[in-house]
Amino acid sequence: MSSFSFTIEAASRRTLSRAGIIETPHGLIRTPAFVPVATKATVKALTPEQVRELGAQVVLGNTYHLYLTPGTDVIRTAGGLSRFMNWEGPTMTDSGGFQVFSLGAAFGKRLSKFGSKGREKESISPDEEKAGRLAKVDEEGVTFRSHIDGSEHRFTPERSIEIQHNIGADIIFAFDECPSPEAKQDYQREAMERTHRWAKRSLIEHKKLGGKQSLFGIVQGGRFEDLRKESAKAIGAMDFDGFGIGGTFLKQDMGNAVRWVNEILPKEKPRHLLGIGEPMDMLEAIENGCDTFDCVAPTRMGRTGTLYTKKGKVNIGNARFASDLSPIEADCDCYTCKHFTCAYLHHLFDAKEMFAATLASIHNLRFLVRLVDEARISILKDTFEDFKQELLSTYLS
Amino acid sequence: MSSFSFTIEAASRRTLSRAGIIETPHGLIRTPAFVPVATKATVKALTPEQVRELGAQVVLGNTYHLYLTPGTDVIRTAGGLSRFMNWEGPTMTDSGGFQVFSLGAAFGKRLSKFGSKGREKESISPDEEKAGRLAKVDEEGVTFRSHIDGSEHRFTPERSIEIQHNIGADIIFAFDECPSPEAKQDYQREAMERTHRWAKRSLIEHKKLGGKQSLFGIVQGGRFEDLRKESAKAIGAMDFDGFGIGGTFLKQDMGNAVRWVNEILPKEKPRHLLGIGEPMDMLEAIENGCDTFDCVAPTRMGRTGTLYTKKGKVNIGNARFASDLSPIEADCDCYTCKHFTCAYLHHLFDAKEMFAATLASIHNLRFLVRLVDEARISILKDTFEDFKQELLSTYLS
Repeated sequence: MSSFSFTIEAASRRTLSRAGIIETPHGLIRTPAFVPVATKATVKALTPEQVRELGAQVVLGNTYHLYLTPGTDVIRTAGGLSRFMNWEGPTMTDSGGFQVFSLGAAFGKRLSKFGSKGREKESISPDEEKAGRLAKVDEEGVTFRSHIDGSEHRFTPERSIEIQHNIGADIIFAFDECPSPEAKQDYQREAMERTHRWAKRSLIEHKKLGGKQSLFGIVQGGRFEDLRKESAKAIGAMDFDGFGIGGTFLKQDMGNAVRWVNEILPKEKPRHLLGIGEPMDMLEAIENGCDTFDCVAPTRMGRTGTLYTKKGKVNIGNARFASDLSPIEADCDCYTCKHFTCAYLHHLFDAKEMFAATLASIHNLRFLVRLVDEARISILKDTFEDFKQELLSTYLS
Repeated sequence: MSSFSFTIEAASRRTLSRAGIIETPHGLIRTPAFVPVATKATVKALTPEQVRELGAQVVLGNTYHLYLTPGTDVIRTAGGLSRFMNWEGPTMTDSGGFQVFSLGAAFGKRLSKFGSKGREKESISPDEEKAGRLAKVDEEGVTFRSHIDGSEHRFTPERSIEIQHNIGADIIFAFDECPSPEAKQDYQREAMERTHRWAKRSLIEHKKLGGKQSLFGIVQGGRFEDLRKESAKAIGAMDFDGFGIGGTFLKQDMGNAVRWVNEILPKEKPRHLLGIGEPMDMLEAIENGCDTFDCVAPTRMGRTGTLYTKKGKVNIGNARFASDLSPIEADCDCYTCKHFTCAYLHHLFDAKEMFAATLASIHNLRFLVRLVDEARISILKDTFEDFKQELLSTYLS
């Protein structure tokens, strides 16, 4: 029934890096690939055509957010997420686990997916924090309150899968518990073991519901080597179509954690690293065997005027850009750099114009998509290490 | 030197309506034409390509706003407004008069350009109102404070023209005084006579500076027939390339006021009605001899979810749209209606997504541009009255 497949085109003999093609009912994903986030069925401030033109192959929606608004009925009736948002390509949804728990265990802590400074935050408003006090996990699932109206909801693995089937993305994820990075090892183990039981239940529900969607299991285990390896073995042994690597750990631990996991996960299935999108982090993850990545950072940073360049990030609000009639990067092939100057972008941000967010998001997404596409080409040519080294020598932040 | 011309292709024998072509250094404008407003060098939330695709031929920037931010230096250095904002077509700038005076005489009154309910407001924030207390007019010009930082500035006719030459739009306007609609007839006369003296000075400065821009003189006179006619005679006798009809008066007076003026203005020059864009108002103005119209209403209303349809305005936030999987209008040819449902738009507004503003603005602008284009075709076929009557019979608001 499923038209899902993963073909490895090239794999390094020195590292875990590989290039491949994921086939989905809505089209191909050439990997490694960066996946823009369309939290609420829109990549913020962009048309689907703009997302396509900047080279994105697939977008990821958030189950938690889409479940709350607009709700799954209308998305299902519209023909699923891709039809609803007019995205003519593959889609993913996360399991909702991260959002549900970031309103619970991480209450008041402004949890980052990888817990370190400078990385993308899941920002939590005071109202969300208040609601978060009421998120409770038990063996069956999680009861939580909506950050919108405080209403009570419950996700179980079965419910998350049912919701994701209604949303209808090509690649969906098993429901997992994502504990706070401050959680002690005892709790990390407890949460991981529950995640494994939930993974089984997610898989059973997914097979029961049928259809052409593919289910990825999520490896947890925080920053602990033994837990990560144990989780990779347990999840890797289950009949998933691919895997997600989830959880929160410190920036310096990310490469190791990913390697521990990917050395164990079955090679023939794709691996998605959840919530990661900083340039150097992605290269490290690619080196250690990850195939796809999603992150809200490029669009969220774009909306505040922080732009990627090969030399690191710049803030276009800086006064030095006010009269700079060159593009953000002379050799960038994005729509923004081809048509607009830094001075114009600076003005748009200064004047709080919405178009600023559009132009900055296009540039940032193109920067990451292109970076990962170039990494892919280097893997096909077996020159990935040189490619990474060259970038490391110039990238400053 | 000037590559400006206006050719009348067809003119009604029963009304003042006509169809024509304005030639500018940046291209043609087939009239009647609706002119989207790009206040701060961007049609809010849209790319220039989106503005072009929805059929707009020309955009209008605001001299007051562009003078304050980003300032004229960077726009001039960039090659002028069209190059700066990457709009490959004709541009206009207003004189700055309306904004300067709406912060002065209209202080605290939330002045509407045509002073009646349901029309586009120039919204004035408390800070602006405070600054407005300090706007002062004298024979030489106006001293006012920036609504951004309270700094003091002075516009004279010469300065407005100099600024507009630096901004570099194809069609620019003489500096005028736009009194409050509540101003008594005595003051209306005083302001009108000053506007005539300023018009002469604007024209002298414009010729002194040279170049390929075209200058339109502005007719004032409020809602008073004798003043409007006197102003049309005075301004119409000056060597302008075209004319603007400015000022504030009541909705029911608009058609009359425009007719009084256009019966007097020289037929062979184009007439721009400033700040008007409601569908029925435009048709009335076309019937009474206006060629072009600018208005922020379609984009401003779009950003709050108010959408034009042939049956009147609807608010997409209404609960009845939450599960409506049809487009806003089945026979609308805009990008939004071709690709997205009411349910999706409803969701985007509900979720406060920026993309909502983009899609709604595209629909509203396309609605007005198409309406005026259809009016043009009906004038060429000499069936304008039927066209207007048919629309009047269905349009409810």
